[in-house]
Amino acid sequence: MSALQNDTFLRALLRQPVPYTPVWIMRQAGRYLPEYNATRKRAGSFLGLAKNPDYATEVTLQPLARFPLDAAILFSDILTVPDAMGLGLYFVEGEGPKFERPLRDETAIRALRVPEPRESLGYVIDAVKQIRGALNGKVPLIGFSGSPYTLACYMVEGGGSDDFRNIKTLLYARPELLHHILDINAQAVIAYLNAQIEAGAQAVMVFDTWGGSLPAAAYREFSLAYMQRVIAGLHREWKGQTIPSIVFTKGGGLWLEDIAAIGSNAVGLDWTVDIGEARRRVGDKVALQGNLDPMVLFSPPAAIAQQVGRVLDAYGKGSGHVFNLGHGVSQFTPPEHVAALVEAVHSHSRRYH
Amino acid sequence: MSALQNDTFLRALLRQPVPYTPVWIMRQAGRYLPEYNATRKRAGSFLGLAKNPDYATEVTLQPLARFPLDAAILFSDILTVPDAMGLGLYFVEGEGPKFERPLRDETAIRALRVPEPRESLGYVIDAVKQIRGALNGKVPLIGFSGSPYTLACYMVEGGGSDDFRNIKTLLYARPELLHHILDINAQAVIAYLNAQIEAGAQAVMVFDTWGGSLPAAAYREFSLAYMQRVIAGLHREWKGQTIPSIVFTKGGGLWLEDIAAIGSNAVGLDWTVDIGEARRRVGDKVALQGNLDPMVLFSPPAAIAQQVGRVLDAYGKGSGHVFNLGHGVSQFTPPEHVAALVEAVHSHSRRYH
Repeated sequence: MSALQNDTFLRALLRQPVPYTPVWIMRQAGRYLPEYNATRKRAGSFLGLAKNPDYATEVTLQPLARFPLDAAILFSDILTVPDAMGLGLYFVEGEGPKFERPLRDETAIRALRVPEPRESLGYVIDAVKQIRGALNGKVPLIGFSGSPYTLACYMVEGGGSDDFRNIKTLLYARPELLHHILDINAQAVIAYLNAQIEAGAQAVMVFDTWGGSLPAAAYREFSLAYMQRVIAGLHREWKGQTIPSIVFTKGGGLWLEDIAAIGSNAVGLDWTVDIGEARRRVGDKVALQGNLDPMVLFSPPAAIAQQVGRVLDAYGKGSGHVFNLGHGVSQFTPPEHVAALVEAVHSHSRRYH
Repeated sequence: MSALQNDTFLRALLRQPVPYTPVWIMRQAGRYLPEYNATRKRAGSFLGLAKNPDYATEVTLQPLARFPLDAAILFSDILTVPDAMGLGLYFVEGEGPKFERPLRDETAIRALRVPEPRESLGYVIDAVKQIRGALNGKVPLIGFSGSPYTLACYMVEGGGSDDFRNIKTLLYARPELLHHILDINAQAVIAYLNAQIEAGAQAVMVFDTWGGSLPAAAYREFSLAYMQRVIAGLHREWKGQTIPSIVFTKGGGLWLEDIAAIGSNAVGLDWTVDIGEARRRVGDKVALQGNLDPMVLFSPPAAIAQQVGRVLDAYGKGSGHVFNLGHGVSQFTPPEHVAALVEAVHSHSRRYH
């Protein structure tokens, strides 16, 4: 494989000196880009896109052709793992992901098995290899998975939820059954992320989208403990290269000290946290990734540059910061505002390095 | 007016000794009660219920007839104030509140005026008087309002939102216009809550449902600062009685120290915060209200009692705790589980007093 031409992202995750703050954007390959929508149209559907390595490679590279981003992220979905477990992932336009066979009784829960990634998730592994080849060393490639708890939310609810009534009823009334699901999910996520690393992912990120909906004690027991198991099970090195890991709990700002202690190299922050305060709280344990409010991107470029400056100022001097939004970019974002964001991060951050 | 027979709620808010931890439940008069649904059917609609003092009195008292709750809360809606400003509140079944004339340009924003509560909100003031009379001293009556920022969210978005794109575009691109709205809203909320106090409300609560969607610095500037103005403008006493105040920012756990410093007597907590840790953080500055996960109420009574015990244990010994859920009770909650909650709070809390 080609030598890496831009390693600022990997160096920042490891808190090594960098000339400027690297930046990538959650959902950078997505619906705000007309070229993404065109490819999706050709693919016929979101799953048609995600399950075809050629299309997945094409859309992964699209934002890099437009913006000088410092990392690429595998185009896929966080729900590929439960789909491989046989739950039947499908999408209804405007309603988000759903499962045909959600976990609604003990029999279904006890029947869960850890999928072998090379068998049932081969399309993801192939996409990682193909994207890594197509990147040709331009920037590093990030692999990812949903967290065990976040996967369990979708598996039990059967889709998105605004109150998580089913999974929380399981949590409070039958905690041992939820632990069983989480145990299977943790094993599956470890195998899945390690397969991505073996296929070429140079860093990995665990998305805990729904851990923030839990009470503090339940978060530690049902989400964080399983992310800790995942991190402990990952390859720390592959072919002589260190593989940094990032964990991101949306709404996890209250628990940063705990999150920083599970062994990952970096912690993602949503936009509600002051990143300077977060840095004081976690000390030099981890790098931080984030955390501009995605809604800033609806302001004119001058306001975007000002808000980017605030985040950079709050983090302050030195390495250990990967700039990102605090959540995925909105599908309604003007692409030229993303360009303004990337430009502002690159130019304003040099003074801090 | 009759002498108050149960003042545990008011005493706990003022951190005075109590024999047990008082409890009330956000949205205790609501759709989980069949008798509420029957009254609402007679009233024809939610607004028909809220705008009629007879109906409002009837539903306010319903949960007190079922459960030995320690406080009543005025039945009303947080959006009565912008409705009185002429924005035209209406409800679409299953979609939540909407405004016919949301604030979508500078002309509309500059035309906003502070409503005189006795003129345009007379139905609320009448309801407070009538409920206070009907309670006949059984328990204290809580008045309430939305926070200036939360009202502004609905006024600018025209209804609920999952990204708050319109108000955040105003915030980042035209902050002076948002400050203008918030200034008007703060004046309106002060006049509205003081009118409720004059009509008989014995404590008041400010609901900041959406402040938690902001970055830390924006929360302080656009939500907390205006709640501080509201608290400073309220009657602290009325007819010789102290009128305690509660502020509640859903998702505000990161900023508890700041919230505890604005001058209110108590701070509401959502379920994500550990109440013991919250108590350590705010010290003896304020009482705390909360914070059981509303989803606990879908478990059997034994599990409810266990989770209630955890919250009481975490708070620990002494006064200064008003038990509540961390958010409104779900419409799907079995009423007998609310009975189990109230019973558990009353019986288990005596050991801490």
